[in-house]
Amino acid sequence: MGERQYIGRVKIGILGGTGPQGRGLARRLAADGHQVVIGSRAAERAEKIAAEYAETEGAGRILGANNSHAAAADLVLVTVPYDGHAALLSSLTNELAGKIVVDCVNPLGFDKQGPFPLRIAAGSAAEEAQRLLPGSTVIGAFHHVSAMLLDDPSIDHFDDDVLVLGEDRKAIAVVCELASAIPGARGIYAGRLRNAGQVEALAANLIAINRRYKTHAGLTITGLP
Amino acid sequence: MGERQYIGRVKIGILGGTGPQGRGLARRLAADGHQVVIGSRAAERAEKIAAEYAETEGAGRILGANNSHAAAADLVLVTVPYDGHAALLSSLTNELAGKIVVDCVNPLGFDKQGPFPLRIAAGSAAEEAQRLLPGSTVIGAFHHVSAMLLDDPSIDHFDDDVLVLGEDRKAIAVVCELASAIPGARGIYAGRLRNAGQVEALAANLIAINRRYKTHAGLTITGLP
Repeated sequence: MGERQYIGRVKIGILGGTGPQGRGLARRLAADGHQVVIGSRAAERAEKIAAEYAETEGAGRILGANNSHAAAADLVLVTVPYDGHAALLSSLTNELAGKIVVDCVNPLGFDKQGPFPLRIAAGSAAEEAQRLLPGSTVIGAFHHVSAMLLDDPSIDHFDDDVLVLGEDRKAIAVVCELASAIPGARGIYAGRLRNAGQVEALAANLIAINRRYKTHAGLTITGLP
Repeated sequence: MGERQYIGRVKIGILGGTGPQGRGLARRLAADGHQVVIGSRAAERAEKIAAEYAETEGAGRILGANNSHAAAADLVLVTVPYDGHAALLSSLTNELAGKIVVDCVNPLGFDKQGPFPLRIAAGSAAEEAQRLLPGSTVIGAFHHVSAMLLDDPSIDHFDDDVLVLGEDRKAIAVVCELASAIPGARGIYAGRLRNAGQVEALAANLIAINRRYKTHAGLTITGLP
């Protein structure tokens, strides 16, 4: 929305894009005019899901492919469950080199008491991604916006901010701009990658809030100019 | 503000209350009618700071004392720097038994690149406090509201929420109600103590936001009924 300073309409790949978070982001990014390639381990599954979006609104198109094809896009989002995260990224080092890779993964465990953060040796999924992809510029973002609301076309305003983490100012600016594909959302720089772990884990708190208050909670940063 | 369901005006101790966070909370809790005892390692220091508040508004009073005296209050907040956290609490096990202890500590390190979360063996300062204080009911809260704004009497509205973490529903309700002493703020249950670590660490992100955008950032939860 608004002026584009950093990116025009680009081709965006979404690794693991057939899950709720990937589908929701695909819908919003396509509606904002980008071409989106939903990736999956099984191309047929991604193609099937992409076809379901073919008749929805949006200037951009949503295509389905295997993850390696999705990784060939201009900019790549990662929305796989954490347990497949390292293996998938390790297998795509070459495809992802030279690109901005936006890690959207929330490493959570669940038990009878609900969600809890997994301890990640690298500190966070985003830092793990950066270690596995030394030739890519990894940014952490899109951890908190409700997947269900993203994928609901009747929702045309989000009272949410997207916290964007990374080391590279240009890439941060690109992803902050990308966040504005979610109507009402602002992309906000929220620290270096070493501060991504708590942002990823905060999804557990939002789930706890959702359960207690029967809602789809999000968060906004207050006090910005 | 509003009706009190769970607590009347009580005596609140603030361990390490001479720091910015403790002073800011003391000001707001006193203004809401509670009697507040600021605790310090050195009683004289706490008395001196309490005297500075003597002429400010507020139905409640602010007194200064040593930490052990502050720990004798009805309800106790912990606002010490993390490096003194374990030693102080270990020394007050008896005084704090049977009480609600609200841990407000953000375990952060700082270096040339700014703030970063410390790794806590117990998972979080709040979980560490609960381990050290088996006879107390530990709640995590008040991690994010700007200490500077809390202590600025010209600020009469906060666009912030207070995330409240704990295991005990009654104690959670008490602390949620206590949070409303900060005008405009809501106390929101945000999960069990095992989900406190990321809430404490998120203060590092707010500091990064403050530095980038030259502000005093806070956060609110959206989507609540």
